[in-house]
Order: sequence, then structure tokens, then C-alpha cells
Amino acid sequence: MKKLLKANEKVIGVDIGGTKMMATVYNRDFEVLGTCRKKSKGKATKAGSTEARIIAILRDALKAAGDPEIHGIGVGSPGPLDPNTGVIIDTPNLGWKNFPLAEVLGKEFGVPVVVDNDVNVGTYGEWCFGDISDCKDVVGIFPGTGIGGGLIVNGKMVHGFSGAAGEVGHMTVMLDGPYCGCGKRGCLEAVASRIAIAKEIAALAAREDAPYILENCGTDLANIRSGVIAKAIKAGEKMVEGVVRQAAYYIGVASGNLINILSPEAVVIGGGLVEAMPELFMEEINRGIVDHAMPFLRKKVRILPAKLGDNAGVLGAAQMIAERLHPGK
Amino acid sequence: MKKLLKANEKVIGVDIGGTKMMATVYNRDFEVLGTCRKKSKGKATKAGSTEARIIAILRDALKAAGDPEIHGIGVGSPGPLDPNTGVIIDTPNLGWKNFPLAEVLGKEFGVPVVVDNDVNVGTYGEWCFGDISDCKDVVGIFPGTGIGGGLIVNGKMVHGFSGAAGEVGHMTVMLDGPYCGCGKRGCLEAVASRIAIAKEIAALAAREDAPYILENCGTDLANIRSGVIAKAIKAGEKMVEGVVRQAAYYIGVASGNLINILSPEAVVIGGGLVEAMPELFMEEINRGIVDHAMPFLRKKVRILPAKLGDNAGVLGAAQMIAERLHPGK
Repeated sequence: MKKLLKANEKVIGVDIGGTKMMATVYNRDFEVLGTCRKKSKGKATKAGSTEARIIAILRDALKAAGDPEIHGIGVGSPGPLDPNTGVIIDTPNLGWKNFPLAEVLGKEFGVPVVVDNDVNVGTYGEWCFGDISDCKDVVGIFPGTGIGGGLIVNGKMVHGFSGAAGEVGHMTVMLDGPYCGCGKRGCLEAVASRIAIAKEIAALAAREDAPYILENCGTDLANIRSGVIAKAIKAGEKMVEGVVRQAAYYIGVASGNLINILSPEAVVIGGGLVEAMPELFMEEINRGIVDHAMPFLRKKVRILPAKLGDNAGVLGAAQMIAERLHPGK
Repeated sequence: MKKLLKANEKVIGVDIGGTKMMATVYNRDFEVLGTCRKKSKGKATKAGSTEARIIAILRDALKAAGDPEIHGIGVGSPGPLDPNTGVIIDTPNLGWKNFPLAEVLGKEFGVPVVVDNDVNVGTYGEWCFGDISDCKDVVGIFPGTGIGGGLIVNGKMVHGFSGAAGEVGHMTVMLDGPYCGCGKRGCLEAVASRIAIAKEIAALAAREDAPYILENCGTDLANIRSGVIAKAIKAGEKMVEGVVRQAAYYIGVASGNLINILSPEAVVIGGGLVEAMPELFMEEINRGIVDHAMPFLRKKVRILPAKLGDNAGVLGAAQMIAERLHPGK
């Protein structure tokens, strides 16, 4: 459980997601002084509007905290991005291309800013404030619309040469499998993300093999989301359950591979799908790990569902800026 | 290009392999003062004989160097092993089970001993003394009888929680693929190691689809080794070439996955197979990487054949003990 701020120092953690944006002001003990959360509006309609929305959310969080002086801002953003410079390289969803986010926020608020990948800050939050802060090697996997990962090795976040390490969603788990959003085939994301699951379930619905789904959301992938999938399974749709189990098993295969490669002490699995169906996901993920990780390496690994939910990102981002303000402590 | 020894200090690097054992005495500048190399005799015939052979090789290397005073010993050994204690956990080939190698050698020679996995010391040697010592993130892959890997992340060797990280040969590349020596199915090692290649080529020979192989080594896997495979390909056996290309491509798939996960600056590929057929292997590995690594992550990665051959292990092991003697330098 890190935290390195001095007596009166305060920081803001920001989490910029595809569906929501969130900012929280923390004091030295990481008590919440104020928070603000809004839905992202998807693609920016004119230049500058995404950053304008972020600045507004930061100001609202500060207002809720009683407008204290702050000492730094930590941000989790979709990538790819350069964590050294805080430049977002290319996020079509937010309308950014080579956008100097750290610089823009630094100028606006007059404090140091650190920017990292959204999944990295989520993993960092779970690591520092979940039950695994004693672990030096941790893998975080967050299945959602895509599948992101964050890696802690030797007690440090892994960024790699490009700054964008941790693309566990683009490990190939099925040679010549279905197309992935990245253009390759058979990536984990192509067989186990929400979209991959929704695609299979939509096909079931179209064939009238999933009447609950057909009745409640039709065959449009956009409507087949975690909540309704969980309800369909509860309603007894066995083929829907089979689709989700298969996807979760693939996440277990990938987790097994990551255990073989990195030998982590803990693997944390988070994100909306797992939150909606924790038992089913953890069961199949464990099965995939037992089948694909070497016994010697998986023996003592803790496989855990994430526990901080939406707060993992803002907490991790706030912790990162605290460490940037007081390095070497 | 590390090296941290003081003026008169000397160290020994030892590489214990399945087929050969080697020890080299180095001075401060890592000039070779003496070396000894012998074939491993396979399974030990009585208790203590493997370690007796190793001690004899160390003594012969020291003798060749003029019996200087030495200050430490670095050892690369087959694993799994515990790099913290220098205990070899289980290597049936060498007849060791929970064997305290570091302690035994330390008592025999009266100096500090560091023990690490053979592939880790090989990767470490290539990292420190190949052309990539400026890279902070490096992946080493050594296809041979099995397939081992070594990982450098943030400028440090990755051992992970168990001490045995880097089992890249046991990444699953083919779900429900052929059995692997580890008992799982579809591991990289099960489709791309020398044994996996030899198995396919033996089947070609048995069907008389590989007459050069059939004539020169029959259908016994033990005889179908790198050298003769290379010769068969030179002699024009297209199906033999196809088998090797397929295996090398799988190594490329695994390399692509590792690039997606760790975003290294360099990937080094070594071992007997690659030494015997460097162009063919590097061509297919690069093809696999292009197909399976994300463009943003692979763009600037250097994909290199190992350059130090048999000396990588002894050099890496010697460098490791030099760092243990002078930590924090």
C-alpha cells in the first residue's frame, strides 16, 4: 500500500475511458475529497472538445473537494501513448492524434502531470490498493470491449521499448482465427472480448437459439452487453452460457501463457464482463490456467477478480503522480 | 558491455548443458585465461557423479589458466532451479533433485557462487556482450531439444515469483495441438523444438518422402539432428524444408506474442537449429512476427540471431557473478 505524499499535498487521479470519464481528488492518505464522473460522448465533434470535457470534469472534481490547491495530476488514457512524454499517439475514439495531453493539462492546472495507459493505471491501482501490494510480479487482465493488460515485473510497471507493452489482448490464441480490430487474426481479443462474445450470441439469437437475448436486445451487437448476457444465462440459456465459458477459457489460456512467461505471484482479472459474471469467468479462467500453465509456475499463483471496480484507474493514476512527485522514496 | 571486477579479480563462468559442459576463467577485462569443455555423459550413473564431473571441469579450466586465485563462480544450469538459493529443483537428465549446487561449489572452491537457468545466462551473455547491451528490454529464445527463453525487462533479468520465469517454450501456440514434454498440449516446444521437427521429418523418411534423411539417418529421431537436416535441405528435400519453415514460423508467432506483451527493443534467437540454418529460421521468424506482432510494437524491434554461440552461457554466468560481487556499481 504505497502513498508518498507530504502533509498538505493533494493530487487528482483521472481515468479517461471509452464509455466514462472520472476524476477524484485525494489527500495525503488517499481519502476522497471530491469526485466527478461523466459518460464519455464518444468521438469528439470538433477539435479540442475531448480535452475541454476532461478539463471540465477535473474542475468539477476540484469544486466538489472545495477547490483545494493540488500538486499533481495522474491520468489513465486509452493508448497507444508515450508514458515518458504524455503524448497520446492515436485514439480514434477520442479524436486524438499525437496529442500532448500531459502538456495541455500541465499548462491548464500549473502542476506536474503523468499519463499512462488506462489498463496500466487500473492494474497499478489494484496492485497498490487491492490485496496484492506485497507481490513484486503481477499481471492484470481487463476484458471489455477490447482486452487490455498491465504488467508489474520486479516491482515496476512494464512499459517496454515502445512505451506500450502489455498488449495481452493481441496475443495469438487461435492461429488463423477470426479477425481482430488490430487487423491480425486469432488474437485473444478476437475470441474473448465483449464484441467477440456478442457476435456469437447475436448469431445464436438470429438462429432463435437464444430467445431471451432475441426478445430483449435483438441481434444488434451494440445491445448485447454484460448485464443482459448475465441475465440470459440466469434465465437458463445454455448456449449463451457456453459462448461465455468458451471466451473465458481463452482468457485462461492467455493467462496460462503469461504465467509461463512471467511467473507472476498474482493475476488480477477485472472489467465489466467479469464484474457481471464473476463466478463463471473465474471458473473457466482457472480451468484454462490449469490446462496451459506449467504446474511448477502456477502452483502458488493467486488468481483474483479485481476488487476496486471503477476506482482502480483513478487510484492507480493518483499513486503514479504521487511517486513522480517523490521519486526514490 | 558490463563487467565490474576489480584489478586482480578473476571469475569462472560455467555452462552445464544437456550435451556439453563448459567452464571459462576470465580476468577483469573478461579476457579468457583458460577454458575447458567436455561432453555431458547424460544421466549420472551414481550419486554425486554429475557434480564430480563439473568440479573436474572447473579444475581443468583453472589449470589451463595457470591456477589463479578466483573470486567467484557463475553457473548456468538446466532448471527448474531457485536462483536465490542456487538449488536445482529437478533435472532428471543430470540426476539432480533439490540439489544445492551453489552450496556444493561454494564449499569446494571457497568463493561466492551464483546459479541461474542455462537459457537465462545465455540471454544475459548475448545482452551484455552481443550488440544489444544498450537495450533495456530484451527477449532471448533458444530453440533446441526443448525451447527456452530469457527475459530482460527494465534492464534486469526476469525471474518472477517462482524464480523460473521465461518458459517461452511452453506458451500455447496450437490449442489441442500435439503433446509436449511438460504434459500439456500445443506448447511452442511441442511444434517447434528439434524433437518436434525430427518427428515430422522421421515420418517423411518413413514414407520415403525424404530419401536423403532415410539414407543418412533412418527414421530414428535421435539421429535426425540440426546438421543433417540442413544438409537434406541443401540436397533439395523440399518437404524437409517445409517442416523446418513451419516450425520456425511458430517461433515467429511466439516471438510476436512476446513483442505484444513485453515490447522489447531486441529479440535474440540462438541455439543449434538456428546456427545450422540461420537464414531460413530468421526469414520465417520474421514472417511470423509480421503476421502476429502489432505494427506499433514491432516497428523498431531488432530481430537478431545470437552471435556468441557456445560462449554466451559462460560469459553471461561470469557477468552475473561479477555483479553479485559488486552490487550497485
